[in-house]
Amino acid sequence: MKYGEKNISKATLEKWDNPHPERDYTIEISFSEFTCLCPRSGYPDFATIKVNYVPDKYIVELKSLKLYLNKFRNQHISHESAANQIFNDLKKSLKPRHLEVIGDFNPRGNVKTVIRVSL
Amino acid sequence: MKYGEKNISKATLEKWDNPHPERDYTIEISFSEFTCLCPRSGYPDFATIKVNYVPDKYIVELKSLKLYLNKFRNQHISHESAANQIFNDLKKSLKPRHLEVIGDFNPRGNVKTVIRVSL
Amino acid sequence: MKYGEKNISKATLEKWDNPHPERDYTIEISFSEFTCLCPRSGYPDFATIKVNYVPDKYIVELKSLKLYLNKFRNQHISHESAANQIFNDLKKSLKPRHLEVIGDFNPRGNVKTVIRVSL
Amino acid sequence: MKYGEKNISKATLEKWDNPHPERDYTIEISFSEFTCLCPRSGYPDFATIKVNYVPDKYIVELKSLKLYLNKFRNQHISHESAANQIFNDLKKSLKPRHLEVIGDFNPRGNVKTVIRVSL
Amino acid sequence: MKYGEKNISKATLEKWDNPHPERDYTIEISFSEFTCLCPRSGYPDFATIKVNYVPDKYIVELKSLKLYLNKFRNQHISHESAANQIFNDLKKSLKPRHLEVIGDFNPRGNVKTVIRVSL
Amino acid sequence: MKYGEKNISKATLEKWDNPHPERDYTIEISFSEFTCLCPRSGYPDFATIKVNYVPDKYIVELKSLKLYLNKFRNQHISHESAANQIFNDLKKSLKPRHLEVIGDFNPRGNVKTVIRVSL
Amino acid sequence: MKYGEKNISKATLEKWDNPHPERDYTIEISFSEFTCLCPRSGYPDFATIKVNYVPDKYIVELKSLKLYLNKFRNQHISHESAANQIFNDLKKSLKPRHLEVIGDFNPRGNVKTVIRVSL
Amino acid sequence: MKYGEKNISKATLEKWDNPHPERDYTIEISFSEFTCLCPRSGYPDFATIKVNYVPDKYIVELKSLKLYLNKFRNQHISHESAANQIFNDLKKSLKPRHLEVIGDFNPRGNVKTVIRVSL
Amino acid sequence: MKYGEKNISKATLEKWDNPHPERDYTIEISFSEFTCLCPRSGYPDFATIKVNYVPDKYIVELKSLKLYLNKFRNQHISHESAANQIFNDLKKSLKPRHLEVIGDFNPRGNVKTVIRVSL
Amino acid sequence: MKYGEKNISKATLEKWDNPHPERDYTIEISFSEFTCLCPRSGYPDFATIKVNYVPDKYIVELKSLKLYLNKFRNQHISHESAANQIFNDLKKSLKPRHLEVIGDFNPRGNVKTVIRVSL
Repeated sequence: MKYGEKNISKATLEKWDNPHPERDYTIEISFSEFTCLCPRSGYPDFATIKVNYVPDKYIVELKSLKLYLNKFRNQHISHESAANQIFNDLKKSLKPRHLEVIGDFNPRGNVKTVIRVSL
Repeated sequence: MKYGEKNISKATLEKWDNPHPERDYTIEISFSEFTCLCPRSGYPDFATIKVNYVPDKYIVELKSLKLYLNKFRNQHISHESAANQIFNDLKKSLKPRHLEVIGDFNPRGNVKTVIRVSL
Repeated sequence: MKYGEKNISKATLEKWDNPHPERDYTIEISFSEFTCLCPRSGYPDFATIKVNYVPDKYIVELKSLKLYLNKFRNQHISHESAANQIFNDLKKSLKPRHLEVIGDFNPRGNVKTVIRVSL
Repeated sequence: MKYGEKNISKATLEKWDNPHPERDYTIEISFSEFTCLCPRSGYPDFATIKVNYVPDKYIVELKSLKLYLNKFRNQHISHESAANQIFNDLKKSLKPRHLEVIGDFNPRGNVKTVIRVSL
Repeated sequence: MKYGEKNISKATLEKWDNPHPERDYTIEISFSEFTCLCPRSGYPDFATIKVNYVPDKYIVELKSLKLYLNKFRNQHISHESAANQIFNDLKKSLKPRHLEVIGDFNPRGNVKTVIRVSL
Repeated sequence: MKYGEKNISKATLEKWDNPHPERDYTIEISFSEFTCLCPRSGYPDFATIKVNYVPDKYIVELKSLKLYLNKFRNQHISHESAANQIFNDLKKSLKPRHLEVIGDFNPRGNVKTVIRVSL
Repeated sequence: MKYGEKNISKATLEKWDNPHPERDYTIEISFSEFTCLCPRSGYPDFATIKVNYVPDKYIVELKSLKLYLNKFRNQHISHESAANQIFNDLKKSLKPRHLEVIGDFNPRGNVKTVIRVSL
Repeated sequence: MKYGEKNISKATLEKWDNPHPERDYTIEISFSEFTCLCPRSGYPDFATIKVNYVPDKYIVELKSLKLYLNKFRNQHISHESAANQIFNDLKKSLKPRHLEVIGDFNPRGNVKTVIRVSL
Repeated sequence: MKYGEKNISKATLEKWDNPHPERDYTIEISFSEFTCLCPRSGYPDFATIKVNYVPDKYIVELKSLKLYLNKFRNQHISHESAANQIFNDLKKSLKPRHLEVIGDFNPRGNVKTVIRVSL
Repeated sequence: MKYGEKNISKATLEKWDNPHPERDYTIEISFSEFTCLCPRSGYPDFATIKVNYVPDKYIVELKSLKLYLNKFRNQHISHESAANQIFNDLKKSLKPRHLEVIGDFNPRGNVKTVIRVSL
């Protein structure tokens, strides 16, 4: 069985020009207030989402990233799919030189899960 | 002398399709409420079991993993055998690209033990 | 859009002779009271700035580094530009054998950011 | 000058068959209640002893390890010799594929010492 | 400008025979009560000094190391020079197979500095 | 201006008989996954809700308490009103001998707030 | 509805003479490996049990207390009843001058509960 | 000598109606990003400001409190005066039933200071 | 049954004149390296001993206190008796205005015990 | 025997006018870099000195307090005398409404001591 991934159509990640494309440097972002809904039980899930990347032409604007992540609030999506979808959306938008997305979820049924996706 | 490994016959690890088999990513699971019985003294043992893997075709369903781990509650099994058996059962069921199982046991007789098994 | 980087013209990083240029060794500096202004909202930003380097001919005098960092207090500058500008100024002044600058910023809108720039 | 290493003749480390010799896995043991006597001042010394190993044919039985370590209680032995002797005794008894012994001693005269011995 | 390094003439690091020269092993020493005087302001500086080494023929006797470090109490010496001088004195006395000296200084003017010197 | 308190009509706190009404004892409950919506900005708010009480005839069933608290997920309600409403609902349902409700909210705009309501 | 309290008939708390009945003093005991079964779901519950008392004629023998607490392992009993039953059994056996029993249970359904019973 | 207290004339603390004036309850606010200037050296000072109060007719709107505290950024004011002025302004605006203001300042010259003012 | 309390005959607590008998002040002493032997199993026990007192005419000399506590190393004595005996010996020697002795013992059989004795 | 208290004659605690003598408020000062010399062994002692007071007409100027405390650096003085002397000097200079001085000393011979003196 595969979890459904609903379309979060209005999610628009705003991108800005990288002010220093002449060198590789790392941007590490942490958002500790991610929440979505479990596709099986319907109960809320909570996570810290971490995004680590080396920008190429673009950097992500932080408020648009927050609003993008807030849109998962009423989506039914599994831990694995949420982390992979955020990875895909950031990769498509920013085309970074390196990218890692980590979904560090609160325990459910006393089982804690962390998903790590990277280029 | 070798510790006995009792058959935990009813343990059924449910597997789901990996929603993103096209890439390697890591799933880290931590279950802090593992308990079994010492094969020597008969007293309870307590551990945190950690499972880290890169899925191939399947991911483990978390509730079935919890129930599988709960089945050790009244088994007499050593630290070393418990970690290795969990490793073997997950490897056989999921055939993951990478797998590590860690059994982090509470002290017994003021001696603390951690067992790490990996591919 | 690109954040503006205002000229911090009076910033003078004082340099001293490295007392031990005959060997490579590492100097790690941490300044937990960096503050500047967000170029978008105008609100204050706060960060810990870390500078790790292997000196060549010169070491940075610590009080001048503090005064240099204090000059950002009323500058409107983004996280990414602040870290890169500090990196550029130190590189130009000290010409070190190795240099890393980390800007570890307090959360804004519940989003925490760390910028890492290195040779 | 060289610290004396008294013979702890009755120390018998019991060994059991490794239940899974078909693979390399790691056993990490920590014993936080080690105490011996300083060969110089005669005062008690305290340490945490850590043993990390990859077993070959044998694993150490934990209670016999505890009793073996308790035998140092009234021995006059230096930090360096204690860590090396435990290493030698375990290596000789278990013939492990890998072995590391760490003696993490409490401060003496406000000086803290850690000894690490490994294959 | 270069900080002055006063002669600490009476510093005598006592050395003992390494009880186990037949193998490489590591000795890690930490002394959290180092203090000297700032050569610029004259104010006291405080640090933790860490010495990590692989002994060859000799190990350092701990009490003599403490007394050696206590002799900096009324010396005017910079962070960089203190760490390098301790490194040089230990290297000359012990001729170890490996040596690292770390000076982890308390903040001055809210700037914290760590100096790392190694072979 | 006063924040609106929407009617959370379907909230049904299930109560069970207190198994030991013959004595005063304390039940402390902590729920770290409370979320609601800010009545001003519309953005999500997050909190840990703590309920401490001395039961009289009834104790609250924990799953019904969780479901009751989950109902705030899409309510627009202020920090102050949320804590007071939970207090009122528990007081009305359980008529406890003592009751304290604490809403420990995550920072908003870098301002952290804790609301404490008690009999 | 009231949780059932099964008879744990074989529980025998051994008592020893208080060596210092001439004064009030406090004995605080903490047992972090308590486990029982939820009377509703049948799933395991885990807790730390704390016993604080001022002895009169008797003190409890610690191994018998451990064995007594281990007997709850396969009992179906609620958080509230477990803490109250332990309180009653200790009160009856020791007749202490003061007694407090705390059951600090792991979260269930993300809800954490602590029960405090005292004279 | 007495530190000067400059007029922060534009500071307007917005007040809202207390939604539950019928009971005493406590609001605890913490703002970790307070900064002002030392009246003696001119250097920046940093503090966490805590405001704990029991509201009467009014509660303080949090964003206006943040903006009010941000206005100290370029004021020359001592630790003692800053804490007392915030206390006075909140007391005058809110007329609370109880009020405590704590200024927890970062070390200056390795001296850390906390100022506590309460009704 | 009552634990035996062996005579520690050579224990001599040295006392010095209180330099400030004109006022009440508190001296808090903590010794984290206490060890004795369990009177039941013969195994070593470990504890931190804390002594808090208000001196009258005398203060205890710290080195003599350390040597006094070291004398328990090979005594068979229970937790309860050790704490009470230390209390009695200090009370008799110092006749302090106030005295509290705490024995904070390491877990035995996974049961942790703290004994508090005070005037 | 009584420890000697040498005259620290040049110590001048500068006092400023209390900017808010109309109310009681508390000033808590912590200085983590106090050092003096043991009157018995001659070895250095280290402590954190805490000063908590309610000012009357005067507050202590922080830099003069730091310089005053630095003057103990080469004084031979016991823990008890140091705390009491600081208390006496501050009391005489500031005549505060309330005063507490705490000397929290690093362990010596593995014995840690805290001295608390208050009005």
